[in-house]
Amino acid sequence: MLTLQECQEIIHNRLKEIKIPESPSNLYDPIRYMLEPEGKRIRPVLVLMGCNVFSEDISQAIYPAMAVEVFHNFTLLHDDIMDQSVMRRNRPTVHVKWNPNIGILSGDAMLIKAYELLVAEPAASLVKILGLFNKTAMEVCEGQQFDMDFECNTNINLKEYLNMVELKTAVLLAASVKMGAIIGGADEANAQLLYEFGRNIGIAFQLQDDLLDVYADTLLFGKIRGNDIVSNKKTVLLIQALQMAQGRMKRELLNWLKTGTFDREEKIKGVTDIYSQLNLKEITASQVKVYHERALAMLNQLRCEPERKVELSAFSELLMNRKK
Amino acid sequence: MLTLQECQEIIHNRLKEIKIPESPSNLYDPIRYMLEPEGKRIRPVLVLMGCNVFSEDISQAIYPAMAVEVFHNFTLLHDDIMDQSVMRRNRPTVHVKWNPNIGILSGDAMLIKAYELLVAEPAASLVKILGLFNKTAMEVCEGQQFDMDFECNTNINLKEYLNMVELKTAVLLAASVKMGAIIGGADEANAQLLYEFGRNIGIAFQLQDDLLDVYADTLLFGKIRGNDIVSNKKTVLLIQALQMAQGRMKRELLNWLKTGTFDREEKIKGVTDIYSQLNLKEITASQVKVYHERALAMLNQLRCEPERKVELSAFSELLMNRKK
Repeated sequence: MLTLQECQEIIHNRLKEIKIPESPSNLYDPIRYMLEPEGKRIRPVLVLMGCNVFSEDISQAIYPAMAVEVFHNFTLLHDDIMDQSVMRRNRPTVHVKWNPNIGILSGDAMLIKAYELLVAEPAASLVKILGLFNKTAMEVCEGQQFDMDFECNTNINLKEYLNMVELKTAVLLAASVKMGAIIGGADEANAQLLYEFGRNIGIAFQLQDDLLDVYADTLLFGKIRGNDIVSNKKTVLLIQALQMAQGRMKRELLNWLKTGTFDREEKIKGVTDIYSQLNLKEITASQVKVYHERALAMLNQLRCEPERKVELSAFSELLMNRKK
Repeated sequence: MLTLQECQEIIHNRLKEIKIPESPSNLYDPIRYMLEPEGKRIRPVLVLMGCNVFSEDISQAIYPAMAVEVFHNFTLLHDDIMDQSVMRRNRPTVHVKWNPNIGILSGDAMLIKAYELLVAEPAASLVKILGLFNKTAMEVCEGQQFDMDFECNTNINLKEYLNMVELKTAVLLAASVKMGAIIGGADEANAQLLYEFGRNIGIAFQLQDDLLDVYADTLLFGKIRGNDIVSNKKTVLLIQALQMAQGRMKRELLNWLKTGTFDREEKIKGVTDIYSQLNLKEITASQVKVYHERALAMLNQLRCEPERKVELSAFSELLMNRKK
């Protein structure tokens, strides 16, 4: 079985080999720029591992794995424009380094590139894979739209928030591992169990992300803490705080959301204090644990040799215990 | 054989039947809005006619035809954001009626929708169709990037301009009719002849479009004349004028391009006068004719019963003699 490191290496190397033309440079340079940093490659790793559960030969899963990674980076590129984010992975975002028009168009080209990769080596299951990919891609757009709609809404309940997270983040992890499973020859029941595994891991992952923005060890985290608080981003902490806080605490929280001029550190401390008084660190950590356990239960139900589940299980532990 | 009207009706009706969800409304309403107006539907008509040359049964071509129309409208939506166009088909553009973020995301969703339609009824030729569609979609992005790059360049030659037009406009018409041909069972040689037919029609179409902005009968044209002149858009007239004008005339033209404050009608008259002195109406009309004749020559070479070419030939005449 392939280890995490082996999966990541395959993805890194094959992504480097993608032929991206030189001209027009304003279209293609941003694509190269987006694909350069060697991140965790969570989604393509899930494709390869999903395949590897059922087949020793993962070669047919490599192009789809790259497609998923390119698609993910397309969403980051366009989301950064919409959110007016200026930094991503410690570098200026595309629309800042170039301009918003170039960001829009090179993002479009990346989405098309994802489809190119998906059909580069058409497998027997191509139609199934394409159907799953299309459905998932559309759901990711829905999730991003809900996320944007939430910006001007202080009355979002947990269910609505989890639905948004499922669409924006979790379904792509779910589809990645299911896609791999289908290519590896899994039957529908096993493929669907892995979809549910990925979906639950995805939700846990995002809740964990919300948590890390507030409570991460800054040195390990690698990005500045409190960005979500400063930008009033609706996170699982904020929406639960808005539902739970009462009286003076509620007024104080709404004030922090309303006020246009504030001291950054003061706002972070003020909001974090409210979260802590509401026990939201512990509550969210428990929610992360619930979704992680649901994911592991799916893996448990998978009908295959137990040793074939080891890498996916270990990968999920790693994601849940990450400090960044 | 299906007439133009019959083809258009099929497209109109089937587009109305596309299921577009209600929620999130900010994602899906703009898609409905873009697909509402019943335009000429040039590209899907070409898919159906391309198929109909080789097969009486065009049912397998309908979804790909819709895919091409949805793709085309995706490019219009994103181009309007990039060009900051405020009106399209006599209505506010999406990014004006809603906002730019909604324009970006609903455009992304339309591109995904195009792929959904393309694989909705997978034909035997699916992999071939997908390959052609992907290649073409990427070229359309390249064309749009070159067009944007041209904005700040007053030294573009005719060859560079025609290359941009080929990518931005012509290849999609070419791919449309070729896609239809493949689905209809054409062999590679015939399919390629129809590709070249569509490519030449596409170039002629764009040059004609440039011409109509300056010389159309305003009443028939249905949009305000001179928009390209006012916005300094690089058209075949402007780039040839910049290459041909000398001395005082060249200085005058460059002045019109430079000046930020001007009377709209005065600028249109000033630039049109230069075009007329350089005979650019006649020159461009001849260029349109050359490309149209090349297209018809391709149709002529097509190995099939002459009567099966009638509708495509008539459609090309109609496009070339349009007043709007």
